[in-house]
Amino acid sequence: MRQVRFIDPAGTTRTGEWIDGTIEFGDQEYDPADVRILPPSDPSKIVCIGLNYEDHAEESGMDLPERPWLFLKGPNTLAGHGDTVSPPSGKDQIDFEAELGVVIDRQCRHVDADDAMDLVRGFTCANDVSNRDDQYEEQNWVRGKAFDGAAPVGPVVATPDHVPDDASIELRVNGETKQSSSRSELIFSIPELIEEITTYLTLEPGDIVITGTPAGVGPLADGDHVEVEIEGIGTLEHGVDLS
Amino acid sequence: MRQVRFIDPAGTTRTGEWIDGTIEFGDQEYDPADVRILPPSDPSKIVCIGLNYEDHAEESGMDLPERPWLFLKGPNTLAGHGDTVSPPSGKDQIDFEAELGVVIDRQCRHVDADDAMDLVRGFTCANDVSNRDDQYEEQNWVRGKAFDGAAPVGPVVATPDHVPDDASIELRVNGETKQSSSRSELIFSIPELIEEITTYLTLEPGDIVITGTPAGVGPLADGDHVEVEIEGIGTLEHGVDLS
Repeated sequence: MRQVRFIDPAGTTRTGEWIDGTIEFGDQEYDPADVRILPPSDPSKIVCIGLNYEDHAEESGMDLPERPWLFLKGPNTLAGHGDTVSPPSGKDQIDFEAELGVVIDRQCRHVDADDAMDLVRGFTCANDVSNRDDQYEEQNWVRGKAFDGAAPVGPVVATPDHVPDDASIELRVNGETKQSSSRSELIFSIPELIEEITTYLTLEPGDIVITGTPAGVGPLADGDHVEVEIEGIGTLEHGVDLS
Repeated sequence: MRQVRFIDPAGTTRTGEWIDGTIEFGDQEYDPADVRILPPSDPSKIVCIGLNYEDHAEESGMDLPERPWLFLKGPNTLAGHGDTVSPPSGKDQIDFEAELGVVIDRQCRHVDADDAMDLVRGFTCANDVSNRDDQYEEQNWVRGKAFDGAAPVGPVVATPDHVPDDASIELRVNGETKQSSSRSELIFSIPELIEEITTYLTLEPGDIVITGTPAGVGPLADGDHVEVEIEGIGTLEHGVDLS
């Protein structure tokens, strides 16, 4: 199943199903272009992983990490499918980073990797929008990665059965492919990440773990149209306002 | 006014007033020892400031920062007055850090320092509990400062008129004074912090900004009883379980 949260024409927030390009709720069908799509959950926090693709570690000239790099984005960073994000203005380098998002289904702590998939509601597409000007100047990446709009996610939560272990992940800017990799390049698997995170933090229903970006990260320009497509999930699209 | 959130004996969550050591709500009075005190707000995030006291910068041998160091704690870190926090086990050094907390009253972004106090609901006491084993090993302080229980706050939100500009801030462990300083030692003022944070992030009602710790930080031991007392606010007390 691919669940989608949206505001219907009557102004009511709905959780429907995305089937063959149509949103279904009850006996109604909607064209996704006609409704406001919301982020697929209301996370209390977004736990993010740095440097978790072998191809990205290689292009960055970094050693593979011994344990996952963690950082946080607050709910203020959320944007949905179809939104236009406005990163901090006056910066020289705002980058895209396509990522696979994992939506948590139940409150959990101290989860064994073997049990971790039982806690997963499903997967979504994400863009870890990054303000390099500030990220490279600060210890904790708050100005760099936790600004308003730094986490476009969506459009759906796809249950894990839809998403193969080697699902392709691709990011396009204005139709041009910039990142093209596979979930199989992940250094730390999703169960390993959930075990490590929940050693320290409780995860809540709707919390999102975004699992790192593959090779090919690069800059955004004002007016860009971004697509993050992950096999089995769908395509997250958003605009960029750098004015 | 000093507002306090608590669960009354009937199990209902209340926001009452803390007056002369008694909690008042409606026509009822409660002894704080007889009710469960909650964190004074439900923040969507806690924005934290590093290295913001001149005396702490001096003891750390660090230069004064050119702009505020920011980091984040999620809602999972919250603990209240009277709770016993359980930092990650098996660590060599879990430290206390007494801090003044600022509770935000209204959603805001791009706030000028001159207007910032209009957005402040009031002040509270906080302990930025820190797991140095991990903090010193990671880029972003997630295992180090965003674990469950890393942010005891409370017991009240005191409106700014109660808290002098040079309010004393003191932390005691088992009755022994460990930190003793004054709000006047702050490097970046509260209005300056709010202006800087909201250049990048929207603050929400109930969000808390904790403003850095003064000199005297040190380690906690299993069973310790911690008190953070700030003039005009009151005393936050919590236990520590390191077993």
